[in-house]
This record gives sequence, structure tokens and C-alpha cells, in this order.
Amino acid sequence: MARWRVMLVGCGYIAPFHLAAWRGLNNVEVIAVCDLDEKKARERADTFGVERVLTDYETAIRELEPDVVDVATPPATHPEIIEAAAAGGAHVLCQKPFAESLREADRMITTCARAGVRLMVNENLRWSRVYRELRALLDQGTLGEPYYLQIIRDRLFLGKPLFPDQPFIRDMPRAMLYEVGIHFVDCVRFLLGEIESVHCRMRRINPQMRGEDVIVLSLNLVGGQVGIVKADWCSRQRNDAIAESIRLSGTEGTVVVSDDGRMSLLLNDGRTIEQGTFDETYLEGQAFPRAHAHFIRGLETGEPFETDGRDNRRTLAAVLAGYESAERQAVVRPDGGES
Amino acid sequence: MARWRVMLVGCGYIAPFHLAAWRGLNNVEVIAVCDLDEKKARERADTFGVERVLTDYETAIRELEPDVVDVATPPATHPEIIEAAAAGGAHVLCQKPFAESLREADRMITTCARAGVRLMVNENLRWSRVYRELRALLDQGTLGEPYYLQIIRDRLFLGKPLFPDQPFIRDMPRAMLYEVGIHFVDCVRFLLGEIESVHCRMRRINPQMRGEDVIVLSLNLVGGQVGIVKADWCSRQRNDAIAESIRLSGTEGTVVVSDDGRMSLLLNDGRTIEQGTFDETYLEGQAFPRAHAHFIRGLETGEPFETDGRDNRRTLAAVLAGYESAERQAVVRPDGGES
Repeated sequence: MARWRVMLVGCGYIAPFHLAAWRGLNNVEVIAVCDLDEKKARERADTFGVERVLTDYETAIRELEPDVVDVATPPATHPEIIEAAAAGGAHVLCQKPFAESLREADRMITTCARAGVRLMVNENLRWSRVYRELRALLDQGTLGEPYYLQIIRDRLFLGKPLFPDQPFIRDMPRAMLYEVGIHFVDCVRFLLGEIESVHCRMRRINPQMRGEDVIVLSLNLVGGQVGIVKADWCSRQRNDAIAESIRLSGTEGTVVVSDDGRMSLLLNDGRTIEQGTFDETYLEGQAFPRAHAHFIRGLETGEPFETDGRDNRRTLAAVLAGYESAERQAVVRPDGGES
Repeated sequence: MARWRVMLVGCGYIAPFHLAAWRGLNNVEVIAVCDLDEKKARERADTFGVERVLTDYETAIRELEPDVVDVATPPATHPEIIEAAAAGGAHVLCQKPFAESLREADRMITTCARAGVRLMVNENLRWSRVYRELRALLDQGTLGEPYYLQIIRDRLFLGKPLFPDQPFIRDMPRAMLYEVGIHFVDCVRFLLGEIESVHCRMRRINPQMRGEDVIVLSLNLVGGQVGIVKADWCSRQRNDAIAESIRLSGTEGTVVVSDDGRMSLLLNDGRTIEQGTFDETYLEGQAFPRAHAHFIRGLETGEPFETDGRDNRRTLAAVLAGYESAERQAVVRPDGGES
């Protein structure tokens, strides 16, 4: 029997990516999938060879006593599911966005701590190959002291079917920054550290959307670095299959990832080193498998999770500050203060 | 005899670009060059076949009665030179940055208006091929309604001789935004319209500099569009000979100019149209010749200058708002108000 018995709650769009990631780990078994929609849960179970299909997570947790609850439901449901998991003594891997408010995030963090279970937010993007490569270049000192990072992610949905797999996104009052921008905020933190203040502009271009579909974030880091995040569901990249176009500058060199996926290392000493092409999307690449492996490794070794609840609360705080900034047209500090 | 007799005041770094531009216009004659440093003035005169060399612009204007005074001196000297030109009945082409303060800008605008002479600020970058091409794509409706523009201009001076031709830049308390960023602010206005508010971060990376050498500007346009300007003297581009890398998105398509100079038109209907490579720098390309031709054409036809004093005051106001924003870490309106 596998060491870690996982129950997946939530069988929507993201579930197959989770199930595929669990399947790749040989000390993990997904013992059950759970969804209010039994048919959907059944489909996932059939596809991934999961034995049990359930619709009531509370009873399921009580009866099956999983070691891990993998929460892949919408944010509004996270507090009550995590409450049940903690009560059942299960560790939690919770899909982003972690929470709808900082108060809820705090509550979930406290709940897990009191129950003695561990909590990681499933922030998969920072596990993509391109971000790990950037992190390695920083760690090796290749770029010197970093001072600027820009991440651009454009995808075209204007005049096309809008999120056929995730129709709920159309109706979200907070859409792009909350659903997608949050990944990039996490990656900026992963590469540059903590965020001091945020300035954000957002637009809604697509009339089919309720919330924003263009975001431009200026993130001011505690260390003085500047991060720019621009994401957009209304325009194309040269190669839409790639993840992001990125520019990261330090005192010794710059890394450029173009919107055709090509990565170049432009060293200040004059050398230009081509690093190949990064065309792994964060859904279909190694991001989820690595995130899930990190979670299991953390459980086995006791090492901290990169994105535990407390860490991810900071990402969430910056995102919420972004909305406040866009609304008030002001520079906002994630801790709630005015800059 | 040529129709327009021009006197150039200021024989520094930028003077040869002006003199070359005048030489290309067949109804213009540069009758004199003027500089406090007679040797420098003599060198420029010899190179460009100018007859007269002078050191005192006031006497020179009085005695030679030029039709045009081309002001290519530092901003602090603009008010008194423009005063003398206006008193002498000469039209003025004034090098950017126009003024050190809005009050000075206002004074020069009023002086010229009262004297009945015309005033244009020499904002050459908007005359570059790449910006004219973008303007044409917008005018033709190819991009639909524009909503996002980003301009990135990186050049590497870290660990290299710093501005050997313009050593004064090292000692300027306000350096990159005032000297270079101002061009991009003007280009954003040229393409998207007027600026409502500004958020700016700046850094000084190079210890040889007194002022800032990295700027990140977020420009919020009156029409709701967003402009990002990032310029940097501390990092490389893939091809340093090119001008900017640019991304301009509208509701029908996006134009991308990479940092290797390649321009692609990514239409939302799926077509990708390669527009060739734009590797004209704004100093050595057609920007100055076109700006100077526009000035002369305006004098001949009476048509307004794109960048007359009143227009360029708005660019200057946004730049000054940028400094205020960076200092106070706030969103600042160019008209002096808080956003």
C-alpha cells in the first residue's frame, strides 16, 4: 500500500492535472474523488483508475481517513473543506486562489496549525521549468543583483469562445488578477522577495466578461527591485503555446524570454548565451508534478513548503492590494496601509 | 538664397545631428553657429560648411537677423536664448527637454506668442520610422481600439565608459527620465493621447551616476489606455543597435517589436504579418531630418507643429509628475493634483 492516501475534492477543470500529478508519484494513492456532481466525479475516477466516488466530503473524510485532502474547488468553499480535513487529521494541499479574503486565509492557517496538519497552497506556476531556471541563475549569481523583472502573458479570447472549460470565469467580478495574475505575483515573490507596495491598472475589453481581462501591475519590492506584470486575455503572443515572455535584469546580466519562447542570457561582459526554447505551459508541463512532489517530500522530511499558508497569504495580500489600487488609483501596501 | 536662414545656438553633442538635418533641406541655409566655446563652434562650422562662427548669441541675433534660431543648449539656458530669439523676430526650434519647470515652459510659450514668432520643441523620437508605422496602423484601424502600449529601451553602460560624449549626464540629479524617458512619454502621447496620471519607480544602479539610470513608468491615459515605459542604462538588448522593443495592443491586433528589431503584426483573425526589421536609431535615422522638415513645412504653410510649446508642456508635465511620483510613491496627475 502506498504511504500517502489522497482524497481529491473537486472534479472540475483542474482535477485531471492534479490526478495526473499524483499518478506520477509512486508512494501516493488517490483513494477517492469527491464532487457534488457525481457524474463528473465518476468520469475523473474512470479516467484515472480511482476506486471510490463520493459526493459528501465530510462523511468521506470521516469514513476513509485520508492522509491528504487535495482541495480543488472554488475559493469560497476552501474554509469549510479545510476545516473538515483538519478535523479528520488530514494534511491539505489547496488549489489557488487560496482564499477570498485575508481573514479567511488566517482562519484556515490557524485551523490547520491547531489540528497539527500541514497546509500547502498549490501554486504550480513557480514550479515551471522557466521559473526554476531563472531561480537557478539568480542563486548561482550569474545575473548579479537583480533589480527588474517583467512578466507578460497574453492570450486571445476576444471574438472566440470564452473559457469553454471554465465558464464561471466569465461571471467572476474579479477575474484575471484573481485567477491568473496571482500566479505571476507569486513568481515575482519567488524570484525577488517580498512586496512592499502595488500599483495596478485593469481593464475589461471583452464584452462577454464581467470582470477585468487586462491587468498591469507594478510591484515594488522590499529590496528596491521593480516587478511589472502584464496579463491579457485580449491579445496574442507570437507563439501562444508558450507560457510567458519574461525579462529579468541584474547587475551582471539580463535574461530574456521572448513571446516565441526563446531564452537568451545577455551577460554584461558581452557574451550572449542561448538557453533554448521554453514552451512548456504551466498546465501541461512539469509544474503540477513538481508541486505535488514537493508537497509529498515536505510531508516525508518535515521540511517547510515553499508555499505554505503563511507564504501564500502574502501573495494573496498583494493581489487584494492590486484590486484596491485599481479601484482607488493609489499605491497600496499589501499589509493594508497606504504607501 | 535659401528661404530660411537658420542660426544654431549650442555646438555640443547633438549639434551635428541638427546640422545634418538642416543640410538635407534645400530651402534652408545655416548662416551661423554659436557657442560659448569658440573652438567647438569652429569645428562644427568647418564640418558642415557654415560661414559664420559666433560666441555671443544676443549680438549675433541682432546683427544677422536669422529667420530661425535652433536652440541646442542645455534646458537651463533655453528661456534667455528664446527671449533673445523672439526679440529678434526669429522662429524657434528648441531641443528637448524644453524646460526645467512648467513655469519656465509657460514663460517661453508666452514670450514667443507675444512676439508673433513660432515655437516648436524638437521631439525627434516620434519621427522615427517605427513610431510613424505604429501611428499609421492605428490611423488605418488595423489594430482596432488601442488599450496597451509598452516601450522598453535598455542600453548597457554599467562597467563601461559612461557617456563619453555627454559627460554632464553623469552629474545630473535628474538623469534618465528627464533626458531620455521624456522621449518615450512623448511617444505614448503621440500614439494614445493625453496622460491622466503617472506612477513611477526609479533606481540608480551605476555608482558612477548621480541621478537615476533605471525608470519604470506606468502612464494612465485619459482614454483609459495604459502605457508602460521602462528604460535602463544598466542592461543589454539582443541587438543594441535598435531603438526600442515595443508592444502595442488593440481590440483587433497586437504589434510586437522585439529587442532584436523584428516587427510582427499579430492580428486577432489569426494572420501574422511580418513587417520587417526596424533597426534605425533615433539619432542616426530619419527622425531629426523629418522633425526639421516638419518645422519648415509648418513655417511655410502655417500648419500647427505637432510638438509646439503648448503640446510639449504636457510631455514635460508628465515627466515632472514622474519624479514626484517616484519621490512620494504615489499616483500623481501631471496637472499637479493627486490622483
